[in-house]
Amino acid sequence: MAGYPIPQRLLVAIGGNATHPGSIKGTPGEQLRIARLTGEALLPIMEMDNELIITHGNGPVVGKILMRQAIARDRVPPMSMDICVAHSQGGIAYLLMQALENSLRRAGNPRHVVCLLTQVEVDPDDPAFSAPTKPVGFFFDDDEAEAVKRAFGWRMCKEGEQGWRYVVPSPQPKHIVDISLIETVAKSGAIVIAGGGGGIPVVRKPNGERHGLEAIIDKDLSSAHMANVLGVEVLLILTEIDAVRVNYGKPGEQPLGEIRVDELEKYHAEDQFSKGSMGPKVQAAINFVNRGGARAAIASLFDAEAALRGEAGTQVLPSLQRAKKV
Amino acid sequence: MAGYPIPQRLLVAIGGNATHPGSIKGTPGEQLRIARLTGEALLPIMEMDNELIITHGNGPVVGKILMRQAIARDRVPPMSMDICVAHSQGGIAYLLMQALENSLRRAGNPRHVVCLLTQVEVDPDDPAFSAPTKPVGFFFDDDEAEAVKRAFGWRMCKEGEQGWRYVVPSPQPKHIVDISLIETVAKSGAIVIAGGGGGIPVVRKPNGERHGLEAIIDKDLSSAHMANVLGVEVLLILTEIDAVRVNYGKPGEQPLGEIRVDELEKYHAEDQFSKGSMGPKVQAAINFVNRGGARAAIASLFDAEAALRGEAGTQVLPSLQRAKKV
Repeated sequence: MAGYPIPQRLLVAIGGNATHPGSIKGTPGEQLRIARLTGEALLPIMEMDNELIITHGNGPVVGKILMRQAIARDRVPPMSMDICVAHSQGGIAYLLMQALENSLRRAGNPRHVVCLLTQVEVDPDDPAFSAPTKPVGFFFDDDEAEAVKRAFGWRMCKEGEQGWRYVVPSPQPKHIVDISLIETVAKSGAIVIAGGGGGIPVVRKPNGERHGLEAIIDKDLSSAHMANVLGVEVLLILTEIDAVRVNYGKPGEQPLGEIRVDELEKYHAEDQFSKGSMGPKVQAAINFVNRGGARAAIASLFDAEAALRGEAGTQVLPSLQRAKKV
Repeated sequence: MAGYPIPQRLLVAIGGNATHPGSIKGTPGEQLRIARLTGEALLPIMEMDNELIITHGNGPVVGKILMRQAIARDRVPPMSMDICVAHSQGGIAYLLMQALENSLRRAGNPRHVVCLLTQVEVDPDDPAFSAPTKPVGFFFDDDEAEAVKRAFGWRMCKEGEQGWRYVVPSPQPKHIVDISLIETVAKSGAIVIAGGGGGIPVVRKPNGERHGLEAIIDKDLSSAHMANVLGVEVLLILTEIDAVRVNYGKPGEQPLGEIRVDELEKYHAEDQFSKGSMGPKVQAAINFVNRGGARAAIASLFDAEAALRGEAGTQVLPSLQRAKKV
């Protein structure tokens, strides 16, 4: 695979597992250990001194918040989803900010990492609101599912033997609130953590007032949107696997290296990528490149630097048609 | 009382109740209603277009987080206090940011309100760590108190008939992390929400690495520290009562209007102000004025503008000695 020049402005999207293990366990000690690994994996990129914006998922943390409030529901009123996401932005970005700075300090680098709470506007008429599809949080057994359904009005969906999960709308991101501030701070040299968990979902009324919603915005789609608006050259989507795969778990399984966006779109149209995990990442990479991005990479967190150089992971490039035009 | 000129740079500290009622109840609907009232109370100050930094308490929200995790402890691992404070910064600052902007929008004002997650460094040798005194969260009955003590190692303290509360160290704030960014953003014209709940408590090692602690930093002391470092002219501490009172609940009870800091120190030395509520506010006002601040006001949230003009609340001024020197 060819090596690429290092971009001057870069957006890195990391998974919710980067500060929290995927299962329902996750003591502060485990969270700190994982955040530290994330800080070490991102150190080579942070030391390049380019403009760097980091977004992150929040799945396991929001799962814990929802589970705690379901169990404690008779004593403590639950929070709406926008507030849950805001809590998770605070908790995750804190651990991440600290771990990234600590990794820089151990390397003798004084660079700062800061966090901006981020609201993301969605369209109140987004079709997602009439057909919620995004399962969020952990599994409930039959009795619990019935109880939280009654108590909170949650729409529950059964996922086979594992039990029931809360299902929420997952509307498209339309506008990242205060994106100009994200840009200003990134330009100042600080690394900016923003857009956590896809952003706090809000709608804007005609007079400019905003209100929260019961929804989860996909963090990879928000990240791609942010990357396009910021005119970022490269979008790096880091996850637990080393590359996008076609025919996953079937004969002919094959990791994708460099691929043109129109070819990736064909695979995506064939439903090659799982809806809950790889699908949104592939869609985010497609959106980013189709809307003007030079390159999107999907790779393992631990290959971050190699993926940035084009030497690991799946590298999504503009169609040959557009590449020729440019 | 004399009217004062409007300061060019201002720090407003609001209580934890400004986005959450004091009791254990507090549905999202109630929280939104209270945040809206806060937005309306602060509108005249936000419309002055001066540099404005807002800090906030987090008592009721952290209380709910702790109670939820105590009840759900057998299913979901609890978070350490630094992470709990980070969650509360996210949740409260989100509601506040949205409510303040909505209040501006209803008035046709496009000014932005943004939130920076804030760590605050404390001294690991602060005497508070050997003698925790700060009760946090809600009351537990005898059995629950024993159970959480065993499960989490919490130090519990009985407060009369009401039951047991978790007691944590409350060390002095030593350094507001990234205070220069708070200043830069405030100078840009955006209203900055920072230092929520007194800040996420951390210590810094000699190499610059930071680590979280099980502590709560008093939000008024953090606010005063921030105000001094930022060279703010006026510190406005807004709360539920209209003024500081001497002989509270006794014969000779009297609200304080304009008062010199040395006179207020005398009352404070007489233990006139309750340790859990008015005491820290009075101490914060004393610290701010003694360390160079021009004026601190302690007043009702709903008298915010009048207090800023010097026409409501308790107005703490430098000693006559210093006033003459200047």
